[in-house]
Amino acid sequence: MPQPRAIQSINKDTTLCISLAGRPGNFGTRFHNFLYAELNLDYVYKAFTTTDLAAAIGGVRALGIRGCAVSMPFKEACIPLLDELTPSAAIGSVNTIVNDGGFLRAYNTDYLAVRQLIAQYQLAPETPFALRGSGGMAKAVAAAFRDAGFGRGVIAARHAEKGSALARECGYSWQAELGEFRPELLINVTPIGMAGGAEAERLAFEADAVAHAQLVFDVVALPAETPLIRAARAAGKRVISGAEVASLQALEQFVLYTGVRPSPEQAARAAAFAHNTAAHDTAAQS
Amino acid sequence: MPQPRAIQSINKDTTLCISLAGRPGNFGTRFHNFLYAELNLDYVYKAFTTTDLAAAIGGVRALGIRGCAVSMPFKEACIPLLDELTPSAAIGSVNTIVNDGGFLRAYNTDYLAVRQLIAQYQLAPETPFALRGSGGMAKAVAAAFRDAGFGRGVIAARHAEKGSALARECGYSWQAELGEFRPELLINVTPIGMAGGAEAERLAFEADAVAHAQLVFDVVALPAETPLIRAARAAGKRVISGAEVASLQALEQFVLYTGVRPSPEQAARAAAFAHNTAAHDTAAQS
Repeated sequence: MPQPRAIQSINKDTTLCISLAGRPGNFGTRFHNFLYAELNLDYVYKAFTTTDLAAAIGGVRALGIRGCAVSMPFKEACIPLLDELTPSAAIGSVNTIVNDGGFLRAYNTDYLAVRQLIAQYQLAPETPFALRGSGGMAKAVAAAFRDAGFGRGVIAARHAEKGSALARECGYSWQAELGEFRPELLINVTPIGMAGGAEAERLAFEADAVAHAQLVFDVVALPAETPLIRAARAAGKRVISGAEVASLQALEQFVLYTGVRPSPEQAARAAAFAHNTAAHDTAAQS
Repeated sequence: MPQPRAIQSINKDTTLCISLAGRPGNFGTRFHNFLYAELNLDYVYKAFTTTDLAAAIGGVRALGIRGCAVSMPFKEACIPLLDELTPSAAIGSVNTIVNDGGFLRAYNTDYLAVRQLIAQYQLAPETPFALRGSGGMAKAVAAAFRDAGFGRGVIAARHAEKGSALARECGYSWQAELGEFRPELLINVTPIGMAGGAEAERLAFEADAVAHAQLVFDVVALPAETPLIRAARAAGKRVISGAEVASLQALEQFVLYTGVRPSPEQAARAAAFAHNTAAHDTAAQS
């Protein structure tokens, strides 16, 4: 068990990391603080929301806040406020800001996590896939598939302008809906199925598409078992859940903020701790 | 003993309070976090410095940071960035900002602490006094004496413009140096005698003035026993130390931030905890 490092041990030199999200969750706060205690690092982490993103990012810079996770709806809006985009954020979607003495460097650890999952699950780049979504998270996931060599993709997105722009940028085609397309790989990167959302009970892909697929990847992390994941499991399909993305991306953030890489066992325990408690909340990855 | 509330218990709803100081100390961080644990309040506190005060205060507002203590050199510079000055800060010196949903209200709990000490030590308003200093803290202390009815004061300040302006505002006279004046009450509100400062070993008032005084009040909190306080004690004078100001003002901040007033015993233990650990640092009240 980690030592219960006490609130009283926080001092003027303790490093603060935060997150900014429209609807903050507890996953990041629990994940990072668990590992700070486990590894006895003089850091503390807390989730925030804001109605003034520019002032919030200005505060990150002016207060020397070391790291700032960025969730919906700020992943793209924050970019003009930052100093440098690293390759993981090059698609134009940021989920992680690292502050080096006032210089704000942008990363996307969702991108890094999806790259890792593609390798871990040995997904073949010739696999045809459909990706539903066109927001900041969808950009990171689509870029990860593109950069892993996947050439046969359809972006299914109701937002025509954003969907077609993302498809064009990645060399994929765009459709407003899936239509007759029945690919081997289905990827949901919309809030459909997210706990507390307007479409918490909906399937992100229709049952017939699930039936024709071989693997279903749902980026929604809360609940870990979305309606889509449950349907895919029931149909005997391989699945990759958003909980896996959430854990891996948080781990990469942790490494970027602290320079320390926890052991796989430590990371797994942090993720279990964070997922168990985060399950009581309504929002996901912050 | 307080429960050692753990870092892991911090969550998205935990309230953050901070301080801003040119040279952050640990006193405030230790004092507030001790009481948060003692009273089981879901708060966390950390000291910060900044080179961009406007962006830092903007961050306080945008992140919903509940409270912000303000120390040298920001006590006056922060005023244009705030929404309202309450009477304790009316002299134009702020050491405490309370954020109510983005509305930043300014207080000066040093002023409140000095008013309390004047009452507690039963200082008589007809007592002639000299107050050395003309910065933000000197303004708060001079205003407290003025508002407690003290009419016979000399502001001794090398800075002619600030010293004479403060004297004029309070109805006192100004002198660059103490000269031949030998009042009953000596008040130091400069960094003379402060640990780690350029004049840590100096007496804020010359020995002859101490010899003629009845009470010496040194606002410097670190060390609690400044050269001036030591000299006054050695000469058998009554003393009021900056440690008393630091504890009382922090307690008033705590009440403003949380709405909870600790018992005198809890406050005393928090102050002892904070002073013991703060003594290892070089800077004082943040």
